[in-house]
Formats: sequence, C-alpha cells, structure tokens
Amino acid sequence: MSTVWEDNYSYTARNVRPSPVREMLSVIKQPGMISFAGGMPAPEVFPVDKFYEGAHVLKDDGKNLLQYGTTEGYPPLKEFLASFTAERMGRTVGNDEMLLTTGSQQALELFASAMIDRGDFVVTENPSYLAALTTFYNHGAQFLGIPTDQDGMKVDLLPAAIEKARSEGKKVKFIYTIVNFHNPGGATMSLERRKKLVEISHRYDIPIFEDDPYGYVRYEGQHLPSIFSFDDKGGTLYAGSFSKILAPGSRIGWVTGSTEIIRKMVVFKQAADLCSSPICQSLVYEYCRKGYLEEHLPVIIDNYRPKRDKMEEALRKYLAPYGITWVKPEGGFFFWLDMPGIDCRDLFKRAVEKKVAFVVGTPFCVDEAAGIDKARLNFTFVQPDVIEEGISRLGQAIAEMKS
Amino acid sequence: MSTVWEDNYSYTARNVRPSPVREMLSVIKQPGMISFAGGMPAPEVFPVDKFYEGAHVLKDDGKNLLQYGTTEGYPPLKEFLASFTAERMGRTVGNDEMLLTTGSQQALELFASAMIDRGDFVVTENPSYLAALTTFYNHGAQFLGIPTDQDGMKVDLLPAAIEKARSEGKKVKFIYTIVNFHNPGGATMSLERRKKLVEISHRYDIPIFEDDPYGYVRYEGQHLPSIFSFDDKGGTLYAGSFSKILAPGSRIGWVTGSTEIIRKMVVFKQAADLCSSPICQSLVYEYCRKGYLEEHLPVIIDNYRPKRDKMEEALRKYLAPYGITWVKPEGGFFFWLDMPGIDCRDLFKRAVEKKVAFVVGTPFCVDEAAGIDKARLNFTFVQPDVIEEGISRLGQAIAEMKS
Repeated sequence: MSTVWEDNYSYTARNVRPSPVREMLSVIKQPGMISFAGGMPAPEVFPVDKFYEGAHVLKDDGKNLLQYGTTEGYPPLKEFLASFTAERMGRTVGNDEMLLTTGSQQALELFASAMIDRGDFVVTENPSYLAALTTFYNHGAQFLGIPTDQDGMKVDLLPAAIEKARSEGKKVKFIYTIVNFHNPGGATMSLERRKKLVEISHRYDIPIFEDDPYGYVRYEGQHLPSIFSFDDKGGTLYAGSFSKILAPGSRIGWVTGSTEIIRKMVVFKQAADLCSSPICQSLVYEYCRKGYLEEHLPVIIDNYRPKRDKMEEALRKYLAPYGITWVKPEGGFFFWLDMPGIDCRDLFKRAVEKKVAFVVGTPFCVDEAAGIDKARLNFTFVQPDVIEEGISRLGQAIAEMKS
Repeated sequence: MSTVWEDNYSYTARNVRPSPVREMLSVIKQPGMISFAGGMPAPEVFPVDKFYEGAHVLKDDGKNLLQYGTTEGYPPLKEFLASFTAERMGRTVGNDEMLLTTGSQQALELFASAMIDRGDFVVTENPSYLAALTTFYNHGAQFLGIPTDQDGMKVDLLPAAIEKARSEGKKVKFIYTIVNFHNPGGATMSLERRKKLVEISHRYDIPIFEDDPYGYVRYEGQHLPSIFSFDDKGGTLYAGSFSKILAPGSRIGWVTGSTEIIRKMVVFKQAADLCSSPICQSLVYEYCRKGYLEEHLPVIIDNYRPKRDKMEEALRKYLAPYGITWVKPEGGFFFWLDMPGIDCRDLFKRAVEKKVAFVVGTPFCVDEAAGIDKARLNFTFVQPDVIEEGISRLGQAIAEMKS
C-alpha cells in the first residue's frame, strides 16, 4: 500500500478522530439493541405529508431551484425566520444580519474558520457538544472548559479563567455556549447568567457564539430571551437549526449576528460549498410559510415530553439508588448522568452485552478525566415502551459492576 | 461600532477576499448587460419535469429522507455513480472508495483540511479554478503555478519546479489539476500528459487531485480515461459533480479515491456538515436510476455546442484582429483570452460601460501579473442571439483602448 496520502496529511488530519457517535452506528444496529446513543429526532414526528405538499415548487420554480443560489441564503426563508425568531431575538433582524447554512453544523465550521488560529483558546461549557469541540479542534483550538450546574455555565468562574489564560499569554477567541437544554448537560442558562455573560463578553472583548438547536423544543416553563437580545454591542452570534424542529434531512440552519461577522462567514461559505441547496431551502420555506412550523412544534413536544418523563421515572427507579444524579432537562433531547465511582467505559461494555447503548461521557469533556463518570442518554428517538426496559438493563449492568 | 469581531478574527479571516465572481453579481444584474461573467448552466437545459417526477420519494420515503443521513452518502446514488463513471475510471469503484459531498466545492474544502498546513505548497495549473485557489489559500496554502498550453498543464516543467521548491525547504503537498475543458483555460490534458503526471506523482510521492466537473460536457472528440485510471498506487483522488450535468441546486458532488483518503475526508465532513441532504441525494438518484441522466447529456451538449461555436466565430471576427488568441475548448463552459498589451482591468471598466461583462484574468492566476492580459468568457448561460453582440461590444471597447 502506498503511503502517498499519510505522508502528506495535514497536522489536523494526522490527529483528528472520527465522531464516536457516528462511529457507534454498527453497535446501535445490532438486533435487539435499545439505543439511547444518537441524537436524532423520532421519525414518527416528521411531518411527511405536509412537507411533501410543497414539492410542487420543484416544478413551478424549477429553473431557479435547480440553479446555483446565493451564498447568503434564500431570501424568503430568511424573512420568515426573521419574523419567526423575533420574539426570542428581541427584534426582527435584517436580511444582512442572517446567513443560512448547510445545517447548523456548518455554522460552527464557518465560525471556526473566521475566528480560530492554531493554538487559540475557546471557552466552552464542560461538557459541551461533541461535534462543536471536534470542529474547533480541527481548526487548531484549545479549550477553556467552564463547569456547569442546573443554571448552565457557571459564568462567575469566567473572569478568573480568562485572566489566568491571558496572563499565560493565551489568546481567548470566543465563548461557545449552548443556552437551552444543553447537549449533553441538559441545563438551561438562567436569565441572570445570560446578562452576566454579555457583560463579561464586553468587559474582555471576547465575542459569544450562542448555539440554540433545541430552543423551540421546550416541555415546560417559559421561553427565555436569547443572549443575542441582551447584547447591544453586536458581539453575539446566534445559531438555530431546522434539524430538531422540522427535519435534519433538510440540512438547513441559520446564524444571526452583526453584518460584520455574517459577511465574513459568507466569504468562507463561498469556499466551503458556494451555497446551500435552493431545493431544500425552498421546500422548507413552502412548509413554513403556511404556518405549519408553528402548528408542528406542539406535535414534537407532545411526543417527546412523555418520553422524557418516562426516562426520568426509570432513572429514579433503577439508577438513583446507585447515587447517580442528573439535571432534569426542561426541553431538548438528553439526560446527562453523573455516576460517581462508575467508569463509563466499563459500563458501556457491559451495557452493550445487555443490549442497551448510550454515549460515554469522555468525548464531551475538554479534559477526558471529567467525563469518566458521565454518560449521555437520548430519549427522543426510542419508542416509549422500551425506555423503562433500557434503563433497567443499565441498572443491571451497574449492579454487576458494583458486585 | 464594536471591534469585538475584527479584534478576534483568524489570520485567514483578516486576509481572505470575497469571490470576485460572486461579488460581481450587482454589475451583472444591470439592465441590458450581456454577461459572460458567471459559470452557470443555462436554465433552459434544466430537466425540470423529469426531476420533479421523482418528488414522490419525499412522500414514499419521507421518514428516511427527513432524517440525518450517513456522512458517506446515500448508498444507491453511490452505486449508480460507480457504474456511470466506470468507463472513465477504468473500473467500477467500491462503496468505500467514494464519498458524496455538498457540491464538489465541498470536496475541495475537505481535501484542503486533510492535506494543507499553513505554508505548505500546492501545485496548480496557472491559471486555475478561482474557488479552488481560494479554498486552498484559506487553509494557508501557497502555490506552485505551472503554465499550460493546448494540451493542459506542461507537466514536463513539474520535476524541476518540485525539486527547486524542495531544495528551498518547501513542502509540496499535492497536485491540483482540472483535466477536461479547463476552467478557465479551456484546454484538455492529453493522454500522454495524464500518464506522465502519474509517473511524476509516484516519483515524488505527491498525490493528485483530479477535478473534473465538466468532463461529461464534451462537444467533439473522444472522452479520455481519467488520471485515476492510470494510477495503480491509489494516489489520485477524482472529483465529479452534478452541477454541470444536472443541477447545481442539488449541491451534490462526489469524490473517488483510495479508502484511506476517503475515510479521512469523511471525518472532516462529520465536522463540516454531518451529511449532505438525503432529500437532494434521493431526488438526484430517482432522476438517475431511470436513465434520464444519460438521455440528458446530449440535450446539454446540443444547447452549448452552438453557443461555443457562435462565440468562437465572433471572437475570430471581433477580437482576433487585435492579436487576441485562445485555446478552443472541446467542451465545458469557457474561453480564456490571451490579450497581449491589453490590461483586463481597464478593459473591464470600458466593457461594463458598453454593457458587456466578463471576469478579469488576475484572480485565476497564482501570480496576478500573469493574469493582467487575460479574460474569462462564459458561453453557456447567455442566449445565442446576444453572443455576437456581446463580443462586438468587447471589440469596440478594445478599439477605444487602442485608439
């Protein structure tokens, strides 16, 4: 075998690791496996018929949709989103304050291109979204991980962390936060901390990436205003996604921010994929413009809330006795288990033997040690009637480890 | 205005420039403008009805298509492509030798991530595809530009160029070549040079990126085997695209190569956009599996060939008298004008006043000086009846400059 590729790889290519979640697919697909591992919407909530209803645009507007689109995104969909998100954003944002992306994953990638030089530091919650950590890592970032509690990132710890980093000559480029129903942590950042985070951002001249893929999937309590809405200096970029509220297959996300950062990301998008698919953008718009998105949110919420409740009930019954705790998520997709004294990698092996899968905590943490006694469990994708069985199998696996 | 963004930009963000082609849109849209500037397919060739015919999959297979797809790409479409490209590739490639990308632009981006560290050198034709140069530049590349003639890259110049670069301590990471109907140069690499390039690649342990978006749009002569087909050591990655043979709006391209480089690019794709849209991949597959793609190629070719011929006739009539020359493209989208003594930037200003647009040569060249007396003209997007008028306006603009 020739070594022509490996001899010429970039530094990142030589060091990058595949996503543990995506690489677990073969385990998950074993017959009889109950999987809490992925982060996928339940297929039964996809609004297949109403989405298909808009397919006629492929015929009616075919000549435009089959052509290249603008890099900035399909204007009618941007207008819809500006209106749909106005309450949360505090105002109706302008066309040049928004960019549509190929899934919100691409927003992370473009943002990383715009901000990170090798060796720069990035503030994240610890734990944080795996594929954000990977994207930032691929661009050469190192991490300042800030612990969390039931109110999200402990922002009071931030000033000292930033000052220490700066005193060591480190460049801190931005603060990445998942504000609602954190992946994987489950917590929602309190109003007070949102405001505090903006103050810190201004004080230290460090911008914020506010990631909110789950924000509209709230099972109880009131929606909170975005960090973006408190930032009167335009230093916060907000990212949203259709993946969790409509269809990941659309690969459409959006970012909202000052024209300056949006324009910069547009330039990187030109080089990344020229434009997102006009076909997908138009199909999503057709669905949204009829009011279907607003009608659909309660359907999603009514499907997921009982699953969350069922999982929590089972966790209390089968895992709490072992001293395992969690933050109850008010929305979103995940429970994050704190399992003192249990090594998640050992548990994973035993769990898979018992035909139940989850994701080990380590890859979510900026220092793997912090994740060794943690586990992430998804509750949206599974059928409700197997949730209790899956958690009880986990309990049995733990019982065996303790015995 | 806060400086929070610019204070924290990456090196690339501080230095990157927007695509001159995409930024020219406002000029192109002026009323009465005849534009030879873009690189877009003619909308009248889009097979709107037959593409729409497959839309029922959104209903029939909705639950799968609205969900996340695999990063590697929709397997039935990969199987179709393996068979469709078999003759050109020299064999039917396997599933794990192919990755579907969000347009072939993304293939460039993922490849750059896998190969380039800041300061590395990349071999390209000089001139080369603008958005490839930008993508590589965004990743920190510098360029070894190799001149071209009617048979493509002058590969005989390569060994000395590589040896000189290496003697200066430069790392040469890969050779990027557009093999058929070069953008912008128009030339097709001869069979002899394809084989020679593989020899050089093996001799110097430098892999090849063979970019072929136009390869199936040939107006005359015989299709040539790919460089990939001659590379028995697996050091060539071949990239194709549906943009020029079906619809850019699908944002689907593909790369074929050894499992090693494909697997590495998959890892970067996980971080870039998780997966390309299953909706788009499935719609493209529905179209292709019925044999429509093969039927459609002659429709495209019959639309574009007379446009090319008309443009060449007009070039001979209006521009040749000024000593302007070009390589006649046997396919593809572009004429590349060599205009000794004419500064393309001055010509551009005068041309726009006369309501005709093209792209100046400079951004296609790794050293801007080489592009000052060059211009790129697209012939596929315009209506045939305005081609002569547009070229005659260009001739008038040149006449004024010379007077």
